[in-house]
Amino acid sequence: MTGYSDESKQEFRRVAFALADAARSAILPHFRSSTLTTDNKLHDGFDPVTVADQAAEDAMREILAKERPDDAVLGEEFGALAGTSGLTWVLDPIDGTRGFMSGTPTWGVLIALSDEDGPMLGVIDQPYIGERFHGGFGVAECIGPHGTKRLETRPARDLSEATLFTTFPKVGTVAERDAFHRVAGKAQLTRYGMDCYAYALVAAGQVDLVIEAGLNAYDIQAPIAVVEAAGGIVTDWAGGPAHQGGCALAAANLEIHAQALALLQA
Amino acid sequence: MTGYSDESKQEFRRVAFALADAARSAILPHFRSSTLTTDNKLHDGFDPVTVADQAAEDAMREILAKERPDDAVLGEEFGALAGTSGLTWVLDPIDGTRGFMSGTPTWGVLIALSDEDGPMLGVIDQPYIGERFHGGFGVAECIGPHGTKRLETRPARDLSEATLFTTFPKVGTVAERDAFHRVAGKAQLTRYGMDCYAYALVAAGQVDLVIEAGLNAYDIQAPIAVVEAAGGIVTDWAGGPAHQGGCALAAANLEIHAQALALLQA
Repeated sequence: MTGYSDESKQEFRRVAFALADAARSAILPHFRSSTLTTDNKLHDGFDPVTVADQAAEDAMREILAKERPDDAVLGEEFGALAGTSGLTWVLDPIDGTRGFMSGTPTWGVLIALSDEDGPMLGVIDQPYIGERFHGGFGVAECIGPHGTKRLETRPARDLSEATLFTTFPKVGTVAERDAFHRVAGKAQLTRYGMDCYAYALVAAGQVDLVIEAGLNAYDIQAPIAVVEAAGGIVTDWAGGPAHQGGCALAAANLEIHAQALALLQA
Repeated sequence: MTGYSDESKQEFRRVAFALADAARSAILPHFRSSTLTTDNKLHDGFDPVTVADQAAEDAMREILAKERPDDAVLGEEFGALAGTSGLTWVLDPIDGTRGFMSGTPTWGVLIALSDEDGPMLGVIDQPYIGERFHGGFGVAECIGPHGTKRLETRPARDLSEATLFTTFPKVGTVAERDAFHRVAGKAQLTRYGMDCYAYALVAAGQVDLVIEAGLNAYDIQAPIAVVEAAGGIVTDWAGGPAHQGGCALAAANLEIHAQALALLQA
């Protein structure tokens, strides 16, 4: 990350915002539309894919093909495209499709720019609210309906005074759910159902922890960049890198991270 | 409700919107503020009250004292004020204080106008998003960041294809939780954590059911008015009136209401 010029960093952010803008335009006409077309990705499960999801990834890939033809792309809907620059754009056009289908305003467009060390720039965009959480290269901000605000994670507090988020009460496997509940049982407040928005709230200094399992790389790379740019830390449940997906522990600071990690591993 | 003139109905809505506007102004400076002052209403529990909550109810009561001095007021923060008109303004300045404290944009200001038969006009206002769901006297609308849209609940579908919301996975007592899970076990999708916003989503035709327990009158009166104005139905778990609080079953239509009610009573 240290090897990039200021011009490159500005260019990366400009492209990331252009992708987010394109995704907004592609998605918003479909949000809370009564003519929403749905599809089932998994025949035996419930994993809705929307027209909006595909249209947004299409729109983002079109911009990248034109403006960043040497970079690789990894997207939820249309897979991996190889590149030659060593950089990868990691896209989840709608993180939280179940929330989207239910009309909640807490799904998001996830965009990350990564090199071999992981994500260095991330955007969590909420098109309906008109809110963009972004972080990387020394900047962390929320550009929202009431202005722009610097993102900064919470200072340390004991787990007994902390707020913890996850998306599904089931969490993942039985062992993963048990590990989660070892932490949840000691937290002051546990909340559910926020998808990527929960990571944005860690970055915004509103909550202390997000713990999730069963993630894909495109679910977690943008949150990692945003949370870490705001002063937080994101690892897997063994304390190692989380950017390949799997289990994630996002924390506002090292102290609460250590408390949660110890309980996840107990 | 049939006894009111068109002028009266317009006046009721104008006052309800003025209350919601005042609450927005009182609350927004405190949302996601790092200097948020909290208090514990219950010494043995976790029931945060914010400065914002009290400031918003104060602001609304001030308007009512001036513009509707003969009406009664029932508010979450400052209790009941008797009136002589037979009308009561029922106020919950921040429904979803835990969500508010966590920075989620799914808490709401609840305002209802009720007579002896229950709520006839309701507002569910989300100040951060700038979204106002309102219903009553033959009108049901969402005034939001992307325009105004008529609210209309979903047509009937089988419970196996339905989406169900509740705020807390625990729901209430053990018996209440078991009853809830008899319905959740047959629904296609169950989501958590939305507070009053879930009722707005029923009104907006996005989800089919909200099932909650342990409600106060001021938690449910505005949702009843909005959901019913949009074509839905709200009862308690015995199929009777829900406006005094307790257990609520909000449904998009009579068919899904009957399916859920049968399972709650099984």
